[in-house]
Amino acid sequence: MRASVLRHGRMVYRDDVPDPVPGPGQVLVGVRACGICGSDLHFAAHGAEVVGLSNELARGRGMDLDLDRDVFMGHEFSAEVLEAGPDTDTHPPGTLVTSLPVLLTERGVEPIVFSNSTLGGYAERMLLSAPLLLPIPNGLDFKHAALTEPMAVGWHAVNKSGIAPTETALVLGCGPIGIAIVAALKVRGVETIVAADFSTKRRELAAAMGAHQTIDPAQGSPFDSVKAAVVFEAIGVPGIIDDVIKRARRGTRLVVAGVCMQADTVHPFFAIAKEINLQFVNAYEPEEFTESLRLIAEGEIDVAPLITGEVGLDGVGAAFDDLADPERHCKILVTP
Amino acid sequence: MRASVLRHGRMVYRDDVPDPVPGPGQVLVGVRACGICGSDLHFAAHGAEVVGLSNELARGRGMDLDLDRDVFMGHEFSAEVLEAGPDTDTHPPGTLVTSLPVLLTERGVEPIVFSNSTLGGYAERMLLSAPLLLPIPNGLDFKHAALTEPMAVGWHAVNKSGIAPTETALVLGCGPIGIAIVAALKVRGVETIVAADFSTKRRELAAAMGAHQTIDPAQGSPFDSVKAAVVFEAIGVPGIIDDVIKRARRGTRLVVAGVCMQADTVHPFFAIAKEINLQFVNAYEPEEFTESLRLIAEGEIDVAPLITGEVGLDGVGAAFDDLADPERHCKILVTP
Repeated sequence: MRASVLRHGRMVYRDDVPDPVPGPGQVLVGVRACGICGSDLHFAAHGAEVVGLSNELARGRGMDLDLDRDVFMGHEFSAEVLEAGPDTDTHPPGTLVTSLPVLLTERGVEPIVFSNSTLGGYAERMLLSAPLLLPIPNGLDFKHAALTEPMAVGWHAVNKSGIAPTETALVLGCGPIGIAIVAALKVRGVETIVAADFSTKRRELAAAMGAHQTIDPAQGSPFDSVKAAVVFEAIGVPGIIDDVIKRARRGTRLVVAGVCMQADTVHPFFAIAKEINLQFVNAYEPEEFTESLRLIAEGEIDVAPLITGEVGLDGVGAAFDDLADPERHCKILVTP
Repeated sequence: MRASVLRHGRMVYRDDVPDPVPGPGQVLVGVRACGICGSDLHFAAHGAEVVGLSNELARGRGMDLDLDRDVFMGHEFSAEVLEAGPDTDTHPPGTLVTSLPVLLTERGVEPIVFSNSTLGGYAERMLLSAPLLLPIPNGLDFKHAALTEPMAVGWHAVNKSGIAPTETALVLGCGPIGIAIVAALKVRGVETIVAADFSTKRRELAAAMGAHQTIDPAQGSPFDSVKAAVVFEAIGVPGIIDDVIKRARRGTRLVVAGVCMQADTVHPFFAIAKEINLQFVNAYEPEEFTESLRLIAEGEIDVAPLITGEVGLDGVGAAFDDLADPERHCKILVTP
């Protein structure tokens, strides 16, 4: 079958990937849409670093991944049920579904994110786990359902922040995660949502998704004009945490949703003097994933403005390049 | 009058300091006891750095301090009322008091901590603010009352942590602040308090103040044996935050009470993967200071074991040197 795989840092189109065979409890699905995530771009460029850090974190029991072999990716997908594995009761063929990006196997839980063996959504077909399938409700467009995963990341970040509707939120960075945070803040009824990004297009998108005010940091620091109680950092580059600590108001809660892979320098003195709280966040709880799908299906979050491009499996490599330009793209979907 | 002042990095005894004159709302007091704080030691060694960071934090409106002139210090004091300023109603002369270390003046609120002009507790006499005076209750020893301030720091850190009695607390570093945190955790009814320090004496002190278990990190990382929900960092050296982030369990709340003045390196990736929360804390609220005095006066916290030495104003310089040895000292009081 067809797939796009990561090979030595580049996405490569293949038409010779063996079809996966569902085991007990598994379901073969046909991928309908799969979003390209910033973490995929980062992994393509810095895979060895990610594998190294993950192994360090897990004290050697981290990622079992060989970067000299093809890597399957794609964790923001919607799909159609094709065939259940042996002794597996599931939705009828043709049912449109999404799922947490994990595959239950006899060896345990395999993340569907970066793998030499577990297929992701950049493929014609993949395996999912019957107990984790979520039918796409309300006749929701499968392309929109593919955004369940990134919107769940934003929903989780806002839940962890404990923000109250009357507290001012400042979102730094309006890539897909920053935008998901803006959308989640709007659902939470936060009355003052301010979003900052250097890109005009991204600021426009943030406004469309619920930001009451947008700021171009090239025109001055957002901290000079916004009295935010909660700051969401969705940039993830070295230096940004320290910059927030230096500029933020006393008592600021900083939710770190950007993923900075490098070592970073901070000045604890500033954080101490202002009693800053740093909440690092990652992914979502399973119920937040389900809620995210419901919010999209019920129209509480309209993800349509986020989708700025669509490519086939043979266009993934070019799409990875295109995503470097924030004026052109937010989310590109791969539709096999 | 007599005082000990910081001059070019050393504490110098003087007998020619002019007596302060109380203005309206102020009270002249005779210092009875003043604890030597780790921040005083740090300021003596790295004053220029502290002034620089404070000014950077306050964007130039920070400390108005000339390190080429004598600096008055001493912010953990108990004292005796001597004489009220003009039109000032206060407690009768002879009343033993303590106070938040700030002086209300016509120019505003002056911290009693590091100053070329506002006297601190390393002096025979100093000024306090009538509205802030707290009489020492229950016939409490004025030496014990001098520990109101450091114990308030621990009380505040524990309050900010939101720790529940059933959650395990791990306290890293058993200097005066770590010990104050242990004591506060005990008052809060925390059922499992673990304290770690390389020093045998300090571990013994932690046990005496309420730690249920103590660990010598030279024998192995506390994180290998303790499943702590809340970690209190009371060491304040570069690298310790990153070390905790790397070793701590998923979801750990890290309360940073140690004051690291230098730039520090962290790996956000580890904190993100484990959704660590970092709460930086500083000082206390005024009501926490009052509560701290009450806890000491009512015997809920026995501070006697902390006091390991006592010197006169002419012994402050030597005491600063002695405090470098954790096997000898925890808190040295200056009793003018």
